[in-house]
Amino acid sequence: MEIKVMKDILGQNDKTAANIHALLAARKIFALNLMGSPGAGKTSLLERTMAAMKDELRMAVIEGDLFTSRDADRIAKSGVPVIQINTAGGCHLDAPMVEKALRELDLDCLDFIIIENVGNLVCPAEFAIGEDEKATVLSVTEGNDKPMKYPLIFKESAVTVINKIDLVPYTDFDVAQATEDIKTIHPAAKVLPLSCSTGEGIEAWLDWLREKVKR
Amino acid sequence: MEIKVMKDILGQNDKTAANIHALLAARKIFALNLMGSPGAGKTSLLERTMAAMKDELRMAVIEGDLFTSRDADRIAKSGVPVIQINTAGGCHLDAPMVEKALRELDLDCLDFIIIENVGNLVCPAEFAIGEDEKATVLSVTEGNDKPMKYPLIFKESAVTVINKIDLVPYTDFDVAQATEDIKTIHPAAKVLPLSCSTGEGIEAWLDWLREKVKR
Repeated sequence: MEIKVMKDILGQNDKTAANIHALLAARKIFALNLMGSPGAGKTSLLERTMAAMKDELRMAVIEGDLFTSRDADRIAKSGVPVIQINTAGGCHLDAPMVEKALRELDLDCLDFIIIENVGNLVCPAEFAIGEDEKATVLSVTEGNDKPMKYPLIFKESAVTVINKIDLVPYTDFDVAQATEDIKTIHPAAKVLPLSCSTGEGIEAWLDWLREKVKR
Repeated sequence: MEIKVMKDILGQNDKTAANIHALLAARKIFALNLMGSPGAGKTSLLERTMAAMKDELRMAVIEGDLFTSRDADRIAKSGVPVIQINTAGGCHLDAPMVEKALRELDLDCLDFIIIENVGNLVCPAEFAIGEDEKATVLSVTEGNDKPMKYPLIFKESAVTVINKIDLVPYTDFDVAQATEDIKTIHPAAKVLPLSCSTGEGIEAWLDWLREKVKR
């Protein structure tokens, strides 16, 4: 009984996700599902991305949070269109939420959309929301054991950003070991160490995104 | 239909949680549900706690993780009894998992049990697991906005540990602001800034725990 209901929910979600994907593909809009723990630096990565690319490509952001519009407020300062989804306690975004948010955006003048999921290294990985690719932000202060402890999200993500590398000297984080673990879980994954604080390594992330958007 | 099933799951969980609570109360065992984001420092706090208290009080640990026994391996080094629960992808512990783990422990020679929940700032707050109190570990590298963005877990927690205060100089974290936000959500909450790396502030945490265990 429980399993049946869960299947229905996932089946319904996947149908809506497929609709979103078709809608965006028809307009050649690339969609990225950006995931990671609370405080990993997802919004900071978006701020860096917008600052670098807003005169180059047409971008919009959908922000997922349980409560508050703090992240959307940060994004709005850049002038990029942003829609805040509040899940009211929900632990992940689902496709119907994203479908509703997309109605608020003018899809005829966009090259790509980044959807920042709820800060959570578990549940968001289980729900497609119409994206072309998933990306996960892991910060060095979270520790080296995270890929092996939370493998699904790294397996699902085409790219893992290792953020806050400016803090490596103050932690016991080993970037080479984390990269190896992520590649054990997902051999084709791209692993990009960078710092949203200092800007170090950001170019490789922008290059990956440019390539995806312009494909 | 969906809501009905969810109610049944929560109702069943709460019944099992009440049974666990009665079982432990009859033996005067204090049980703490320790929560927080991935990498906040829950296991490091346990290591500090065991090192300080293992000759003083009789302790056991239940470790909740999606996969691996890395945390239990760390705890086992101290000689404290530890049981690892693997949720196999599940985003939180529930009462039936804890009930099963408790069967592996000798409850006649324990003063307290700390149950380290899955690293997740959302879902664990929604499920009682038979605890006397909940505690949340928030690390300064996660950022100041977390209490207001994830209020339920802070509302549920009798104490919030603000960990990694040794890293405050390298972040824009404001301990006073975070404390104020937590107390806005939960006026009676205790807020304990400390560092599991340096040991600074650990005594206040140990004192809180001692008082609870010996009540």
